[in-house]
Amino acid sequence: MIIEWFKELQSRICNQLTTLDAHPTARFATDPWTRDEGGGGVTRTIANASLLDKGGVAFSAVHGALHPNIQRSLRITIPDAQFLATGVSIVLHPANPFVPIMHMNVRYFELSDGTWWFGGGIDLTPHYINPTDAKWFHSQLRQICDAAHPMYYDRFKEWADNYFYLPHRHETRGIGGIFFDRLGINEALNKQQLWEFVQSVGNFFVPAYTYFAQHRHQPYTPQHQEWQMLRRSRYVEFNLLHDQGTKFGLDSNGRTESILLSMPPIAQWRYNYQPEPNTAEYDTQQLLRKGIEW
Amino acid sequence: MIIEWFKELQSRICNQLTTLDAHPTARFATDPWTRDEGGGGVTRTIANASLLDKGGVAFSAVHGALHPNIQRSLRITIPDAQFLATGVSIVLHPANPFVPIMHMNVRYFELSDGTWWFGGGIDLTPHYINPTDAKWFHSQLRQICDAAHPMYYDRFKEWADNYFYLPHRHETRGIGGIFFDRLGINEALNKQQLWEFVQSVGNFFVPAYTYFAQHRHQPYTPQHQEWQMLRRSRYVEFNLLHDQGTKFGLDSNGRTESILLSMPPIAQWRYNYQPEPNTAEYDTQQLLRKGIEW
Repeated sequence: MIIEWFKELQSRICNQLTTLDAHPTARFATDPWTRDEGGGGVTRTIANASLLDKGGVAFSAVHGALHPNIQRSLRITIPDAQFLATGVSIVLHPANPFVPIMHMNVRYFELSDGTWWFGGGIDLTPHYINPTDAKWFHSQLRQICDAAHPMYYDRFKEWADNYFYLPHRHETRGIGGIFFDRLGINEALNKQQLWEFVQSVGNFFVPAYTYFAQHRHQPYTPQHQEWQMLRRSRYVEFNLLHDQGTKFGLDSNGRTESILLSMPPIAQWRYNYQPEPNTAEYDTQQLLRKGIEW
Repeated sequence: MIIEWFKELQSRICNQLTTLDAHPTARFATDPWTRDEGGGGVTRTIANASLLDKGGVAFSAVHGALHPNIQRSLRITIPDAQFLATGVSIVLHPANPFVPIMHMNVRYFELSDGTWWFGGGIDLTPHYINPTDAKWFHSQLRQICDAAHPMYYDRFKEWADNYFYLPHRHETRGIGGIFFDRLGINEALNKQQLWEFVQSVGNFFVPAYTYFAQHRHQPYTPQHQEWQMLRRSRYVEFNLLHDQGTKFGLDSNGRTESILLSMPPIAQWRYNYQPEPNTAEYDTQQLLRKGIEW
């Protein structure tokens, strides 16, 4: 039932994003795949549309023996462990620099010894941080979390701040959001309640992106695009150096193209680039830090 | 003396590459830095020149207490260990897709207990593999190695094949070259002989790049540039996912901008892109594998 809901979520999101993009040829390509060791998925991608420069919405439900590398990283030791992992992951890279990059992941994990947990999150990486948008985003997330548990927003917001962090840059990936993992038997919520919370996170993706898409026609210059490409390079650095999902996927011989869906269409690196004070780029850079109460 | 030689090598390479580039405004910017915990370096960079789209030549000589993370990764346990690490690293990203990316590193490491070793290598990442050039490159490397030890070329060529490998892509980073590390007391060569070998590797960089620069005026299309940007994205993936120098640097609180000098000016990711058979791109892809005797 969880698997079916995730699969349906993927279709729903792709349909709604296609409508939102509104480019005459905007469509998500569909790439089904199977995993030799068990299970498979459907990777859906869009490129060169109107709102979206590159986007991916991945569904997977894989199962089989749990690789020793993964057992180690999960701090689990179960002889002959079998696992089921299923979820939906999305990253959207918009064309307009004033529309943010957005990421969402909802997932469920189950082991043959009966252990189970949910994980996921949603976070925003604006190329240019707009405080009004940031406040709106976090207030919506607070509502979603509050509906599940009064401590969840603070707990998961802090978790996101710590998770989406680039230590070598001393900066956060963006304005954060919520992040949670291994929500299982030890939570105050029961399994059904956790599942409803995870569904509400999944359901928030399209309304949120619809809100941010309001900036899609804001005029921009080549300088704005340069900055967008520099911010995207930080996204690449985070995902390849730090993202646990990327690491888990590549270590477990996952499907590379689906794992690296999150990569931007084009990114740029410049040696030691620092924005000048009193510019929008500088202001954004100042806000890439943990612990901001939006 | 080793430190002085590396420093002089950096200047010499930058001067020679400036002459080779020949763009009226081609020059290497000079960025000296110091490390709070001891030592420092000089990072030299060039961008938007004629031959070179982006290039960096880094010299550093750092010393101090050896961080426990690094001790672990080096499989060393010495109480209160002090280290000295010095070397030169270069990566050049040319403008013309028919000129290859080239990387070289020569380094020396010393510990307070008297342990020392040399490491380094040189390897080539053509956007389009030209077998004549590949043969020339490997034959030159064989000569350099043979002058030191009859087994070195085979040993270090295999090491490079294994090191410059992207398991998630099932492809090598390029056509390899030579790679070696921890050449110390256990080698057949003594310290002076090893040092002369390392110097000969360092001295090979400019003559090699001069040879490859012969392709700098070869006409190219936007399609060739697209492929160049895709190949560069694989370079990013290797350096952020696998490169030990990058990992060592970032883990030891190194200078981020100097460590990430190797990043291309601009790179591109496309979902599941596969070149068509009977194209130059396809032919290159087929040659990105280990164990080719050039």
